Order: sequence, then structure tokens, then C-alpha cells
Amino acid sequence: MSDIRTDLALEAREILEDRSASQIPGVEADINRDDRDITITRVRVTSNAGETALGKPRGVYVTLEAPNLRDRDPTLEERVSYCLARELKPLLPPINRDFSALVVGLGNWNITPDALGPRVVSKMMVTRHLLKVIPDQVDERVRPVCALSPGVLGITGIETAEIIQGVVEKVGPTVVFIIDALASRRTDRISTTIQISDTGLNPGSGIGNNRVTLDRNSLGVPVIALGVPMVVYATTIVRDALEILSREAPGSGMPREEVIERMVDQVIAKKLGDLVVTPKEIDTIVDDVARILSTGLNLLIHDGVTIDEINRFLH
Amino acid sequence: MSDIRTDLALEAREILEDRSASQIPGVEADINRDDRDITITRVRVTSNAGETALGKPRGVYVTLEAPNLRDRDPTLEERVSYCLARELKPLLPPINRDFSALVVGLGNWNITPDALGPRVVSKMMVTRHLLKVIPDQVDERVRPVCALSPGVLGITGIETAEIIQGVVEKVGPTVVFIIDALASRRTDRISTTIQISDTGLNPGSGIGNNRVTLDRNSLGVPVIALGVPMVVYATTIVRDALEILSREAPGSGMPREEVIERMVDQVIAKKLGDLVVTPKEIDTIVDDVARILSTGLNLLIHDGVTIDEINRFLH
Amino acid sequence: MSDIRTDLALEAREILEDRSASQIPGVEADINRDDRDITITRVRVTSNAGETALGKPRGVYVTLEAPNLRDRDPTLEERVSYCLARELKPLLPPINRDFSALVVGLGNWNITPDALGPRVVSKMMVTRHLLKVIPDQVDERVRPVCALSPGVLGITGIETAEIIQGVVEKVGPTVVFIIDALASRRTDRISTTIQISDTGLNPGSGIGNNRVTLDRNSLGVPVIALGVPMVVYATTIVRDALEILSREAPGSGMPREEVIERMVDQVIAKKLGDLVVTPKEIDTIVDDVARILSTGLNLLIHDGVTIDEINRFLH
Amino acid sequence: MSDIRTDLALEAREILEDRSASQIPGVEADINRDDRDITITRVRVTSNAGETALGKPRGVYVTLEAPNLRDRDPTLEERVSYCLARELKPLLPPINRDFSALVVGLGNWNITPDALGPRVVSKMMVTRHLLKVIPDQVDERVRPVCALSPGVLGITGIETAEIIQGVVEKVGPTVVFIIDALASRRTDRISTTIQISDTGLNPGSGIGNNRVTLDRNSLGVPVIALGVPMVVYATTIVRDALEILSREAPGSGMPREEVIERMVDQVIAKKLGDLVVTPKEIDTIVDDVARILSTGLNLLIHDGVTIDEINRFLH
Repeated sequence: MSDIRTDLALEAREILEDRSASQIPGVEADINRDDRDITITRVRVTSNAGETALGKPRGVYVTLEAPNLRDRDPTLEERVSYCLARELKPLLPPINRDFSALVVGLGNWNITPDALGPRVVSKMMVTRHLLKVIPDQVDERVRPVCALSPGVLGITGIETAEIIQGVVEKVGPTVVFIIDALASRRTDRISTTIQISDTGLNPGSGIGNNRVTLDRNSLGVPVIALGVPMVVYATTIVRDALEILSREAPGSGMPREEVIERMVDQVIAKKLGDLVVTPKEIDTIVDDVARILSTGLNLLIHDGVTIDEINRFLH
Repeated sequence: MSDIRTDLALEAREILEDRSASQIPGVEADINRDDRDITITRVRVTSNAGETALGKPRGVYVTLEAPNLRDRDPTLEERVSYCLARELKPLLPPINRDFSALVVGLGNWNITPDALGPRVVSKMMVTRHLLKVIPDQVDERVRPVCALSPGVLGITGIETAEIIQGVVEKVGPTVVFIIDALASRRTDRISTTIQISDTGLNPGSGIGNNRVTLDRNSLGVPVIALGVPMVVYATTIVRDALEILSREAPGSGMPREEVIERMVDQVIAKKLGDLVVTPKEIDTIVDDVARILSTGLNLLIHDGVTIDEINRFLH
Repeated sequence: MSDIRTDLALEAREILEDRSASQIPGVEADINRDDRDITITRVRVTSNAGETALGKPRGVYVTLEAPNLRDRDPTLEERVSYCLARELKPLLPPINRDFSALVVGLGNWNITPDALGPRVVSKMMVTRHLLKVIPDQVDERVRPVCALSPGVLGITGIETAEIIQGVVEKVGPTVVFIIDALASRRTDRISTTIQISDTGLNPGSGIGNNRVTLDRNSLGVPVIALGVPMVVYATTIVRDALEILSREAPGSGMPREEVIERMVDQVIAKKLGDLVVTPKEIDTIVDDVARILSTGLNLLIHDGVTIDEINRFLH
Repeated sequence: MSDIRTDLALEAREILEDRSASQIPGVEADINRDDRDITITRVRVTSNAGETALGKPRGVYVTLEAPNLRDRDPTLEERVSYCLARELKPLLPPINRDFSALVVGLGNWNITPDALGPRVVSKMMVTRHLLKVIPDQVDERVRPVCALSPGVLGITGIETAEIIQGVVEKVGPTVVFIIDALASRRTDRISTTIQISDTGLNPGSGIGNNRVTLDRNSLGVPVIALGVPMVVYATTIVRDALEILSREAPGSGMPREEVIERMVDQVIAKKLGDLVVTPKEIDTIVDDVARILSTGLNLLIHDGVTIDEINRFLH
């Protein structure tokens, strides 16, 4: 099994290729840098070998990287939302008259960096009940959407998967979107990288710590996962710094990478424990990211609506 | 059918007895004023006639009235919690080793007076997952409790009943507690009156506006409802004032009660619409009431725990 | 002295004219209904007689009434903001290069209907420090603005006036804007009526209960007050209903208005006490109103900026 | 001038003694480990030499370290509050009939780790107005306290010092307490270390970034500062890890400390920038710490009140 601890397929692949200095069988990747501010990497895991190497199930993983999101530029945020909608589309069944979506926001709303999912849910254009009760008054571009933040095990005492399975059985959506905050290996990925995939969410992924996989298998319908790194392990900060030193200060006498890895595991992990850290400004960051994701989903699902129309609906 | 619009069986009965000046068949009531600060009224609806007269399904309705709760005295609040636990017990199946509870907080957490249910849920000792994973580390008095705030139709696009049914099927609790904010006919009942019943929640009851009855029928297990008036209709303020004037200022030339009723319906309702009002200090009120209810439930379910132990658990 | 208890000069005048069936000396009024959705009433108190009659100090009171604000239409909200800016302008000293403003949000941020002032403050384009430190990077249309929510006596233990005087002395603004939530006599005025005046805030006005007048006298600079009714006294609901009945149901045998007034004072006030009520949806209402006021002020002060530029600044 | 960047005198001294391997002239320290869970270090800076060496102004710095606060044990939290009250007392003027206090909570309430000060303020027994208006109804142990959270420059446009000076001039307290969130060099100090001092707050200290020193000089009355580390610089995590490695993995070939320092400054700082991180659970952490500090202050000022009485007052 893979020893790579990261929620991002992108990072798993980077690490692996760094190590093996060659392409990994069963893992295809292409990178698109057409847009000056947004880099799109599509990783496709196509075989058992790829699954084992990457520690990720078979499927498509698309990553949007937009480091300038740090600057909180509304124009870039909107472009990322449009880009997100465009990249999600090929992963979905056709958005026709029978289409309906359930949006699930994982995570604990009482812990700011973990509240990304619930905040996306709170910004979705929820329309399923309107289309049932007053279909004539609803714009024809609007598709039925319902949305739920199931909370976390510590709050509800119920496995998240149990709640979602129960609801999916009652509601019967065409597709389920699952949003979660992720942990990254690199601090500069916090809030600037979006990973989408058609594989659902793996057990233990995310910082919400959900134990049962939420995927087409367990839920019976296609499951699209959207994740954004909101935290890093303190140990990863150290590990990365050591690697940088090893690479960029070669004359300094820093030990080789394997030695560093072992040192971090033995010495640092004991001191820092499983301390997970997040930027001090996380309150505004999580709101910005939630808006980018929800706008992308709203643009995608309700084909042809504009950002102005979305804002007016949510007003 | 009954034309009486109130969520409180107590009020329905009062109005009816006022009108008929006699006891209603199929409706039994006893009042307990042993405690100087807390009046307990038990109304039992035992026949179709009683159901029709009162507009409430067959079952037991217990009301705790503690007007001094207004003063925010912590000692009285704790006594009401103990009293609530004592009055709930006879409505429940035995709290033995097989007992487990699901606590459901109805209402919209974005509207303060409607957030009572969700706030009770946030103060419950949630233990089901602990008893599953680390049963040896859990005090033997603790019973499995899980808790959920399903939101409202406008937020989720899903009928509340659908969500709860889905979860009940997965979790299989012995009993479901449902908490909701109520509308009362009298402003002085806001936050000082607690109604509990074994009939679940009727369609249209509460200010959460749930359309499907949540009861033993629809959920398959006993359902205990807890409600506290948090709002009044502006029209009821007027109606009550007119009745007071009619009664207490007899020489004033005020018209008879039936005339007043008709006038209110025709003239006032049009002007005030369905304006629902709540005290300006509702933010603190809803927190106080939520703590009283959650403490009562925690005392009831985990037999023998003290308020200190509850507070420490929730800390 | 006046026996009229209302924060709105408009209401005081209405009541008075109803009573006297004639114009009041020292009180001039003109009404502008050019705009189909916004009625503007300008009341000018010009003499001691006017002050006594109206119970309001000499000065200009402008009221914007827009009942359709209830519908939460963003376009109307923006029009009200523009209208507010236009009506405020004649009350101010010239907005030239030397102009600077302090915006004060009165009220208790822990009590939703009372939080209007603090929420307006949180949406102001605060620029004073930028113009001091990085003047070259600030758009030339931008004037120096600082803003403060001093809290209420019960929270700080300090008279609001003391805090504001202290800050005005240090900061030396050209003008002080003071925002407060008001109490109205009519429920339909809640959140749909804006009163502005150049007289500051009278003692006992508003629901924030500030004891020292905040005006040019006590602060040493022009003081412009902006107030919006967010609560009504429960007794006023009753009083209004009785008056409506008296007027619209003449054959019903309702007593005359003076009798009603007395009855309300004697009977109802005792029962309802000083219960102040607010709509159940106050959480969203106060946010909407705060945005309307802050946008109006931002448009006014930073001459030529657009709503889009304001939103981008506040993002 | 000192090149040591830390808000804690304790840390400054540690670093210095590590470097010089000897005592620093003008800096006296004693450590008290009587209590098994709380270590108290008193650092006294007594000369210009000490000031220069430590980069801290002359005065007393007391540090309470209670690593077990991590476990959120209410009993330990109360003991720390009592200990805090005891250590603060010698720094104050006598708490007699003329004593009065102003408690100032620095920091931005919109950024969770920076909200420590404002949250302490919100938990203070504010009594000044009661003692003015209804002195007969106030317990004789109660002293006049007022409290203010002035916000930060970016929110108000006003230098924090200007607001506080203005208020101090109006209110005239015997002593000013200033609470602020600090930055530490060590992650394990977050929320477990409290620093108090009689020197006020230095420019640039704290994460609130206040530019004018708040001390007896600028405010005219004794100023007691209370600070708790709530954030660390990401670079300090790396620096500490490297030092640990250097020390605890001596055979690993890690470079000497000075080399590490330089490497961090040159390589890491560029990559991590001034990223300030905080634990993911900061929302609950900041509430816990605020309660510990406010309880300590309430116990100190209102001599003889119990924690139960404080909780009842604040209820």
C-alpha cells in the first residue's frame, strides 16, 4: 500500500515521480496552463497498479491551482468558478430534464477550517422544493437541487455515511456532490487549490474524518467530490522546509532526504504530535473559497444562469 | 374541525372551556401546583370527540408553566429541567440497557426564535458513537444518544420528514425526541411554558412549518415532542388585549367577544397580515430555553448523572 | 411637554395633526412622492412652539418610506441607498478636501434588532488610516472615514457619550454620523422607513437607551442621525388596532379614541408591560437595512464611487 | 538592539541564556514549580543593559505555564484562574474603595485567534454603571469595572491608542488591564502560557499590531498587560524543529545552530513568507482561554467573590 499521506492526487503523483524519476504505470496526467492564472492538472488512475502506487482509487482527479486567489481578487474568483463548472461537466451524467443533484457539505461547522462544506451548502441555489410545489414560477433553466450538511460523528453520534445513505434513498438524486476541506502537504496550497474527482471520498480523507467511503458503490449514484486544502500538518511544514534546505542549500551539510524523512518521523512527529494548523485569517478564507465553489456548482447545474442571477436568488 | 389556532393543547382547552363553560367530553385534565413556581397541567385526549373538539390527536399533553423564568434565575432553571425530566419519564419506554434515543431539533438556525431545536441538539450529550467504539471508557449510566438538526425545507429542499425517516431507518432508536419552537396566543407564554406530548408533531404545528406528521406512525417508533412558544402572532396580541378590555373595563362600551373576534378577523388580520413577533431579547432567551430543555433531556436519558457532570461533558 | 412617545418626527406630527386637525405652528412639512416606491417627507421644526408640540428639538427631519423594501428587491434597495445619499447631502458641510467623517453605530450587537448600528459600521468603507499611511495608493474620490461601535452601557459600563466624546476629541472629524435602531408606533414601518436628521439623537431615543444627547452641542461638530424602526412596543400594536377598529368598523360600538387611549394605558400596558417585539425574521432584516444605510453613506461620502466599487472594497 | 522576535519575555530570556550560557546582567528570574501543573516564572528587567539584551522594557514579567490546559480540564482551568489572580495582585495598586479598572480587549473580533481580547471583555463583570446608578443594590465586594474592545486600525481607521486614551481621560480608572493575543516561538505554548506584566504593551507586540505603546506613559495610569500565545509563525515551527534535530539527532549530520538560523532566514522565510498559523480547533481554544483570563480578573478585582457568583452574574 502507498505510504503517501496527502488528500491530493496531484501531490501523491508529484512525490511518486520525484522518487521514481519516471512515469508511473496506470497513472496518466496532463497539465493545462492555457490560462495564465489557473493551472489545471488531470490525473487519471486506470489500473490496479496505479491505484496501489498512488493510494487513490481508479478514476479522474482534476486539480485547479490558482495561487493568486490569495489576493482576493473578485474577478479571478469568478474565473475560477467558471473554470470549475467547465471541468466538472465531463464528470457528470447529462444535465437534462431528469437531472437532479444532492449537494453534501461534510465537516464540522464549529471548527472554522472544517466548515467549508457546510458553508458551500449554505450558498447553494436550493430549488427542489420549489420545482415540486410551484414549478410554473421557476425559471426553466433551473434544475432541482437539494443540499445537506450532515455534521460530524462527534456532533451527531451518527456515521456521516448513514445519514447520507438515508437521505439519498428518500430523495433519489441523479448525482451527489460532496464537498470537504482537505489537508495538504504544502502551506501554499491552502485555499488556492481545488481538487475534483469522480471517485467520491476515500475513507480517512479530508479533515472531517469520515470512515465509510462515500462513492457510487455505497450511495448507488455517481458521486463527485470537491475538496480544497484548508489545513496542513505542522510536521509537513517541517518536512518540506527540510527538503527545501536539502535542495537549495547543498553546501550546508544537510543530510540526505531519506535521513530527513526518518528524523522527522522519529523526532519531530513526537514533539509536534498531530498538530494541524491553519492560517490565522481562516475566517475570511473559508468564506471566499465557499463562494468560489458554490458559484461554480450553481453555474454548472442551472445551465445558463449568470452570477448576477445567482446572487439575486441567494440574496 | 377545530377553528382554534394554537400549538398548545393547554390553550386550546382553555378557549374551549371558556366558550362552552363546561367540561369537554374526551378531554381530561389535571393541574398540579405543588411547586410554587411551576404549574403542571396534564391534558389527556381520549376519544374522537376530544380530538375534534381540541384539534389535537389522541394522547397526553403535559404543560409546564414557570412565569418566573423571565427573571433568568439559574436555580429555577435547574428545577424546571429536573421537573421536565420527571414529567417526560412516564411517556417513554423503559430506559434500560437496550434504550437509545435520537434527538431531532426542528427549525431554521438562521432565524433566532426558530433556532430553539438546533440549539437543544447542540447541547445534548451525544454518546452513541462512543458506546460503539470505546464502550469500556464510557460511564455505565450513559445511554446511546444521537442528535440531528435537519434544517427546514427552504434550506435543504428536502421535506424534514424524509430526512428524519431516512436517519431513523439507519439508526433504529428506541425513541425519537423532537424539539420545536411554537407559536402561542399569549405573549407571556414566550419562553416560560414547555409543552411535551407523546403524539409527535402535527402537520402545520410549530413555526418550522413541517408538512408531514412526525409521529409513531410515520417514524415507526415512539415520538416525544417538546415545544416552547418563542413567537406570537401580532393578531393574537390584539385579540387578547380586546378580550382583556371587554372583561376588565366593562363600562367602557367595548363590544361583546364574538363581535371582537369577527372584527379582528376582518379588519386587523388584513392590516397586520401574518406578522409573527418575538421579544427583542430573543437571542439570550433562546439560549436559556435550549439549556433548560437539553439539561432536562440529559438528566432523563443518562439516569443518575448530575448537572455538573453534564456541563463537564459538554465543556 | 409632549406626551407623544415615538422616535419618528413623522409619527409625532401625524398624531398631532390628527388631534388638532390643523397645522402646527413652528412645524413645516413637505411631502415628495415623485418616486413611485419611495415617499420622502421633510419636517422642519423652526420654533420653540414647534419643539414643544412635537417633542423634538429644532432642526430638519427627513423620512424615507419604502414599504416595498419588504420584498427584498435588490434594485429597490439600491435606489433607496441613492435616495438616502441625495437627501443627506444638504444636511452636511461641503464634502471637499478637508472633509472627514466618523460613523458611530449605537446599540447592542448581542441583541439582533439593536445591532443595526454596529452592522452599518462593519459595512463602511473605512479609509482614514489608508489616507494617512499610503495616500498615493488611495483613489482621489475617497475621503477619510473612521467608524466605531461603542457598545451600550450594560456591556461597557461607560456612557456611550463619554466614549464618543473621547474619540471625537482625538480624531477631530468634520461631521459625525450616528446610526441607531428606533422604536416605531406602527409595525409596518419596521425596516421600511428611514429617518435622518441634523439634530443628533435625543436622550432616551432609540432602543439603545442613551442618556446623553449626542449632538453638535455635546460633540462640538455637526451630528447627523440615521434611524430605522426595528421594533415596536406590543402596546402600540394594540393601540393601532383599536384605532383601526374605531375608524373602520364604526357600527361595531367601539368606544371613542380618547377612551381607547386611556384604556390601553390603564389596562393593556399593565398586562403587556414594556414588551418590545420584533419580526421573527429580524436576522435577515437587520442585514438588509444595514446594507442599504451603509451603501447610502459610502455613496455620499466618497463622491463618485459606484456600488460595484464599494462592494469590491468591502469584499 | 535585540534581534529576538518573540512576545514572551520568558522566551527572550531562554534564547539569550542559551546563547550566552550565563546569566544576563539586569535580568533577574525565579521559577516556581510548587504546583505540579503550573510553572510560574518571574522575570524582572532592572537596567538599561537588561532592556537592551532582552528587547523588553524595564518591569516585571510573570509567565504561567500549564501545558495540561490542552486537556480542557475545568478544574485545572479554575486553578489557573486563581493562580492568575494571585500573581496579578502584587503588580496592582491597592484594591480599596477608590479602586476602579478599565479592561481593554485588543484585537480583531473577526479573526478567531485575534479575538481573545474582545472575548475576555465580553466575560467581564462590568459594574461601573451599576455602582453609579444603584450603588445600594450592589454587593459591597464589587469594585467599578468598565470594559472596551476598541477594534483594530483596519476596522476603525483610528489608532487603538487614540481610542483608549480618549476613554481613559473620560473615565479615569485606577488601572488599565490590556488583553492581547500573542505570537509565540513554540507551538506547544499556544493557549497554555499566560504572560502578565506591568510594562504595558510594546509597539509591534501582539498580533493586533498596535503601533503606539500602551503603558503608564501614554495612558497616565498603571497598565497591566495580559497576553496568551494564540499563533506561531510557520518559520518558527521549522526553526524549532531544526534545533530539535540538531540536539536530539546528533549523529545525523545536521549543521550547527548558527548555520540553521541563517538557512532558515535565507531559504525558508522566503518560501513561507510571514505565514502565521494557528491550531485548527482555535474556535474552542480561544473561548476556553478567554474564560480563564476573565475569571482570573473577576476574582482579582471583586475581592472575595466566588466563581459561582461570577457565573451567575454573567449568566
